Amino acid sequence: MLQSDLFTKTLKEAPKDEQAISAQLLQRAGFVDKLMAGVYSFLPLGLRVLKKIENIIREEMNGAGGQEILLPVLQPKEIWQRTGRWQDFDALYKLKGRDGKEMALGPTHEEVVVNLAKNFIDSYKDLPFYLYQIQTKFRDEFRVKSGLLRNREFLMKDLYSFHVSQEDLDKFYENMKKIYQRLFKRCGLESLIVEASGGTFSKYSHEFQVLSETGEDLIFHCSCGFARNKEIADLKEGDPCPECGKKIKLSQSIEVGNIFKLGNKYSEPFDLSYKDEKGEKKLVIMGCYGIGLGRIMGAIAEIHHDKNGIIWPESVSPFDAHLISILPKDGKSKNKVEEISKKLYYTLFKKERDGAGYEVLYDNRADVSAGEKLVEADLLGIPWRIVVSEKTVASGKIEIKRREQKTVKLIKPSEVYKIIKF
Amino acid sequence: MLQSDLFTKTLKEAPKDEQAISAQLLQRAGFVDKLMAGVYSFLPLGLRVLKKIENIIREEMNGAGGQEILLPVLQPKEIWQRTGRWQDFDALYKLKGRDGKEMALGPTHEEVVVNLAKNFIDSYKDLPFYLYQIQTKFRDEFRVKSGLLRNREFLMKDLYSFHVSQEDLDKFYENMKKIYQRLFKRCGLESLIVEASGGTFSKYSHEFQVLSETGEDLIFHCSCGFARNKEIADLKEGDPCPECGKKIKLSQSIEVGNIFKLGNKYSEPFDLSYKDEKGEKKLVIMGCYGIGLGRIMGAIAEIHHDKNGIIWPESVSPFDAHLISILPKDGKSKNKVEEISKKLYYTLFKKERDGAGYEVLYDNRADVSAGEKLVEADLLGIPWRIVVSEKTVASGKIEIKRREQKTVKLIKPSEVYKIIKF
Repeated sequence: MLQSDLFTKTLKEAPKDEQAISAQLLQRAGFVDKLMAGVYSFLPLGLRVLKKIENIIREEMNGAGGQEILLPVLQPKEIWQRTGRWQDFDALYKLKGRDGKEMALGPTHEEVVVNLAKNFIDSYKDLPFYLYQIQTKFRDEFRVKSGLLRNREFLMKDLYSFHVSQEDLDKFYENMKKIYQRLFKRCGLESLIVEASGGTFSKYSHEFQVLSETGEDLIFHCSCGFARNKEIADLKEGDPCPECGKKIKLSQSIEVGNIFKLGNKYSEPFDLSYKDEKGEKKLVIMGCYGIGLGRIMGAIAEIHHDKNGIIWPESVSPFDAHLISILPKDGKSKNKVEEISKKLYYTLFKKERDGAGYEVLYDNRADVSAGEKLVEADLLGIPWRIVVSEKTVASGKIEIKRREQKTVKLIKPSEVYKIIKF
Repeated sequence: MLQSDLFTKTLKEAPKDEQAISAQLLQRAGFVDKLMAGVYSFLPLGLRVLKKIENIIREEMNGAGGQEILLPVLQPKEIWQRTGRWQDFDALYKLKGRDGKEMALGPTHEEVVVNLAKNFIDSYKDLPFYLYQIQTKFRDEFRVKSGLLRNREFLMKDLYSFHVSQEDLDKFYENMKKIYQRLFKRCGLESLIVEASGGTFSKYSHEFQVLSETGEDLIFHCSCGFARNKEIADLKEGDPCPECGKKIKLSQSIEVGNIFKLGNKYSEPFDLSYKDEKGEKKLVIMGCYGIGLGRIMGAIAEIHHDKNGIIWPESVSPFDAHLISILPKDGKSKNKVEEISKKLYYTLFKKERDGAGYEVLYDNRADVSAGEKLVEADLLGIPWRIVVSEKTVASGKIEIKRREQKTVKLIKPSEVYKIIKF
């Protein structure tokens, strides 16, 4: 894409109302825009990142046997009363339609999905199945801070699993732990599986936490793999690890996902049941599995940055390469730099047109100085930076650099494919 | 996909609370599920159709120079007060957060996008640009009916164009008329461009209407291309067409899109302005362009069906082909039919795995009768039906049929690629 056409604008100063570095950088670099506390717009660059995260999640959920659906935001009061959560769900947004009917804005979808599943289950033969959606959630959070890390309106992937037995749930649940860690790794995040508050049907639920000083969570963790949320841990820093005896650490972290064994918590109030092989009626056993898409994006920016800007992992970067034309004033040299840049852009990097190459952002702007262009490129954080200037053109070469490295290489244009590999 | 794994269920009877044939068929065939009046869940088959419509829209909007963004649902009262629509927008859902702040659920996004654009426009050089999103809208409609044709929660594509002048808007607007008609045609819908109520800045806005007896709109139209909404037409049926003099017709129709010249209606209250070449401040001129995704889906089912079910156009069908195994009781014959069916499924139709073939729904179910399978296939409405049975296997052939045709062809499995072409 031509940068002259891109709807974006970078800011030299960080917005004053944002404390988290990720929120400052994502707004300065023009990825998101704040409409009000806890509510953000995604601009073209930010939406590209969000769609890449979404596609990684979709691939992993389809791979796990999940089937994608789309459930409504507007939900009738009655189904929330059935589970007692019309009163008990603290952050529930409520509203009333002109017909006088009260509704909730979905903060999660157990009530809706169980109500739906009732029409699809008769016998044990109809189980198991796994439904997921990628849908906006709404929570009237008491405090919102940290940019995309805690919002009132946010995109979430929520999968619900339906089983005949606890054993079948346990098997699927353990598999999802592995899938979740791989998914976060694909997004550039190393996650810890952290024991958290369980419920009636399981001693623990599990959170996927990414260590970060901006995180709102506090977790005890050990190099042996043990990790437990401070909220439920009867431990203090330096205590022996309950698993291996080594000294335990306490760290701040960002929760990017969580999984719960629901058992029959929701199937009971809705009488979601099946007939087993003997024809006996039994309640369906459920699990649920959430991931916050904006949280992933915020956590990536929180962890992958330096003082100059974001450093996107290749898998979620808005573009693969940032091609920067440094245009000299002299007409003839300028034409030559433009010619070489355009050729590079249109031939080597044509993924968007025919799937053969890379996604390239081409900084073709004539009225922006070289210094400004390079500062902006660091702020935007695309993994590969390619510079074409009077100097590189004189030697028949182009300059290439990884965002996180300082050393620049001079290569022939034809060598780009050998260097940028995904 | 294996039909035994698909989360769906067909109904023999139409739901009693739905009048529109599209709503009856989409629910009977398991594409959507009604949660409450005007609010539907999209099941796997329905979401596949919706995503195909979404991709056609995205391609056309990107082709028009549009840049995709994502704007929030939750919108502060203040911006709606600026335009006077906090009071005037009849179907606005309002709610209050725990912090006491009043908000609207976005029924449209002019207020938000203009507020956003203010940060991105300084000079005439920053114009024109075109922003669009595909986002859920909320409208507290007085009456909802006709299934997906009028909902309280619905997916919409809305594009906003920003220009230096009326001339530039006019040019873009005329181009969008062509793009809209092509887009609907790609979805299998022949649309009429209908003059509708304008506003301060233009005599008319334009609606894209598809003739259908279920439609809520009434339009006068003529074979010369003239069409005007009855709401603003000073005509009666049989009057001479104002354009060509032929007798004019009155028909019911479904509005699937609309486009408006907004002029400075929204740029004025927000002081959305730019500096022209002389450094003088001028208001930005705007247009907006909407399409309802669910409406398209509903309109397709309304128009493309017969008494047995839906007949999806190839471009938006949930699958390209429906492969049906009719399994005989005899063990040896059954194995043979299964073997041939599986081979067909895994080799010829492997698009989902490597992009080489077609998307196939494979009805592999052993406990469903041949009759039921064929009735369900007609209800689901996938364009190509392929049957493998004891009879076809005996002749070394398979049976192939278009959904809308009655004649069946017997062909060799290797000939499928010659017949199914997209």
